[in-house]
Amino acid sequence: MSIYDEALDMHKKNRGKISIKSKVAVKNKHDLSMAYSPGVAEPCRKIEENRDAIYEYTNRGNFVAVVSSGTAVLGLGDIGPEAALPVMEGKAVLFKEFAGVDAFPICVGTKDVDEIVKFVKLLEPTFAGINLEDIAAPECFEIENRLKEETNMAIFHDDQHGTAIVSLAGLINSLKLIEKKIDDIKILVNGAGASATSVTKLLLKEGVQNIVVCDSKGAIYEGRKERMNPAKEELAALTNPDKIKGELADVIKDADVFIGLSVANVLSEEMVKTMKDNPVIFGLSNPTPEIAPELAQKAGAKIIATGRSDYPNQINNVLAFPGVFRGALDVRAKDINEEMKLAAAHAIANLVGEDLAADYVVPAPFDPRVAPEVAAAVARAAVDSGVARVDISAEEIKKHTRELSSIT
Amino acid sequence: MSIYDEALDMHKKNRGKISIKSKVAVKNKHDLSMAYSPGVAEPCRKIEENRDAIYEYTNRGNFVAVVSSGTAVLGLGDIGPEAALPVMEGKAVLFKEFAGVDAFPICVGTKDVDEIVKFVKLLEPTFAGINLEDIAAPECFEIENRLKEETNMAIFHDDQHGTAIVSLAGLINSLKLIEKKIDDIKILVNGAGASATSVTKLLLKEGVQNIVVCDSKGAIYEGRKERMNPAKEELAALTNPDKIKGELADVIKDADVFIGLSVANVLSEEMVKTMKDNPVIFGLSNPTPEIAPELAQKAGAKIIATGRSDYPNQINNVLAFPGVFRGALDVRAKDINEEMKLAAAHAIANLVGEDLAADYVVPAPFDPRVAPEVAAAVARAAVDSGVARVDISAEEIKKHTRELSSIT
Repeated sequence: MSIYDEALDMHKKNRGKISIKSKVAVKNKHDLSMAYSPGVAEPCRKIEENRDAIYEYTNRGNFVAVVSSGTAVLGLGDIGPEAALPVMEGKAVLFKEFAGVDAFPICVGTKDVDEIVKFVKLLEPTFAGINLEDIAAPECFEIENRLKEETNMAIFHDDQHGTAIVSLAGLINSLKLIEKKIDDIKILVNGAGASATSVTKLLLKEGVQNIVVCDSKGAIYEGRKERMNPAKEELAALTNPDKIKGELADVIKDADVFIGLSVANVLSEEMVKTMKDNPVIFGLSNPTPEIAPELAQKAGAKIIATGRSDYPNQINNVLAFPGVFRGALDVRAKDINEEMKLAAAHAIANLVGEDLAADYVVPAPFDPRVAPEVAAAVARAAVDSGVARVDISAEEIKKHTRELSSIT
Repeated sequence: MSIYDEALDMHKKNRGKISIKSKVAVKNKHDLSMAYSPGVAEPCRKIEENRDAIYEYTNRGNFVAVVSSGTAVLGLGDIGPEAALPVMEGKAVLFKEFAGVDAFPICVGTKDVDEIVKFVKLLEPTFAGINLEDIAAPECFEIENRLKEETNMAIFHDDQHGTAIVSLAGLINSLKLIEKKIDDIKILVNGAGASATSVTKLLLKEGVQNIVVCDSKGAIYEGRKERMNPAKEELAALTNPDKIKGELADVIKDADVFIGLSVANVLSEEMVKTMKDNPVIFGLSNPTPEIAPELAQKAGAKIIATGRSDYPNQINNVLAFPGVFRGALDVRAKDINEEMKLAAAHAIANLVGEDLAADYVVPAPFDPRVAPEVAAAVARAAVDSGVARVDISAEEIKKHTRELSSIT
């Protein structure tokens, strides 16, 4: 039976993948009077007096909404909110299993940016965090930016930032192996969608000086007229310091690193051969990478990463988002900022340690050390960057992440 | 320790009352590829092809949102959405424990009717049902009416209709005891808020001919000028056929039944004495009824019901809403209509059976027969009234309600 048929059976048998669980028993009148009227009035009064008491007496501090409009689902495109629900339930499962986050899937019945922003803002009394998922670019940028400005929830568009964090982790370790410095290298980012934009910005924040972003029309540079939009204008201003022009085949020349967030098979062996020595190739298009790993290797690639679980070095968001939210929630963070994302990337990179090798630049998805370390690092960065409401020790966060996680 | 301190401790210890549960294990790469990419793409495709497949491959068919603006919470009033969250989590617990419904609490950050309606409409891809809770009148009427018109979810404002269903169940049995017919009696409904309005309408639907509704200004009649609003105008048109005027003390004369949904201690012994023989007194104001049961009895009341668990005949909504939603969800009902509410009331009333007595006109809240019987009756009424999308046998519904319920 194919994985698709098997998945279909599994979804049908269970009618989806998540349910609600009561944390308290209701077996008799006394239980009822505690969980509901009249006892419940007392936590209500406490929260009315002091809003922060909501973290003590409710589950809000651990509630994350996985919000999608279903406009850019996996490789399936704009399949609508109903058809996106299996993915969002799946995401909720991963949040729970990897880091004990109580995530609830909400597929919203609109594609309109204003309506989505208004909708999510109204969720703030109930949710401490919002994981935006599978929302098409460029709408996803405005939605996330406005929500970050207009709410105090921890907002994170995983398609962008999860990929950025794990890619950066892989890059940090790759550079150790090939003995190059982050501020000396040239990186070619192929793709200018949501994840490519976030990857580029996080690389800049980490200190990369020379990034060239290509879309299907070639290098993006300041002053380009063709197929631009506000997000690409911003990229043009931030990248390509030498304002080089041309198609991928031209501008990849002398790059140290290729990061593809685009489509299958756009990178040829010939192009890889024009790169600097010991090229690093991250072909993250799914399920078919920008270049088959075998071909990349033949062309001289030193380190190869993909989005696939059947090759080494899988750049899998599950290394990031569970721990990122665990850490943000634990310190009641008002934001998930660049400092927290960098901290997550370094925590992931550091776990590889002495086992670092060309086929092991990021930990495996089921490495049980990942979520606790990421959570602790993210929480620390939240405190240090001033977006945390409380401070909790790294040891405490790691301990309780391990307790909440079912990954062993 | 008081119930309030005990409830506070319980809420603090558990950090609220509900969490998310995964229905599938994610222990290895294979599990991951089934619950998430690439396997999850297949249920997505099935739903994209046929929206009804969402019932097969996701949990949507069992998801109910408990939506509140926190404007009329218990006896606490307008305490805001944050402070209302413990109540909504509690409601979610009762849904789960009594009938296996996966209810998620959503306290919305607005009181605006339009904003709430738009918000709830955007939930439709994710939720099969909406339980509106603790929303102040008259806003609750417009919100519910518009959502019933503009969506195909099962919409139910429990403060109104849960109370109406259980009150009617109690009345049906009370009339058997005092041997009066529903179309012969005069009922005095005291209060003109959300629950009083729904109680009145359901009593009319059941066949009561003579209802007089009183608010703090006395009987409501067509043409009254004082303190009217659209909801009271509607009540005036539907009730008080003799257009009697006056205060409660005047217009209660010769009533067979008093149903209070108002405030503490507004009904005196003297008033009860002016009622017809064998008066039935439902004093549902909480925690202090319209008349103390001891005084009502002294004044000659034959049957007395309250909202309290420490007196006989508790009119408790938990007898209705879990089974109502269980039945509605099982047949994928597009609405929860008057026929379904009447069916629920009769199912509850019938369970009392031969044990019927003045101190036993409704089943106890923890009677495990209630949710299965209500669910089966509601599902049947949904099918018969044309709002069900599928038909399921009563036996099947009862069996699986029993399996899902933790009340034994």
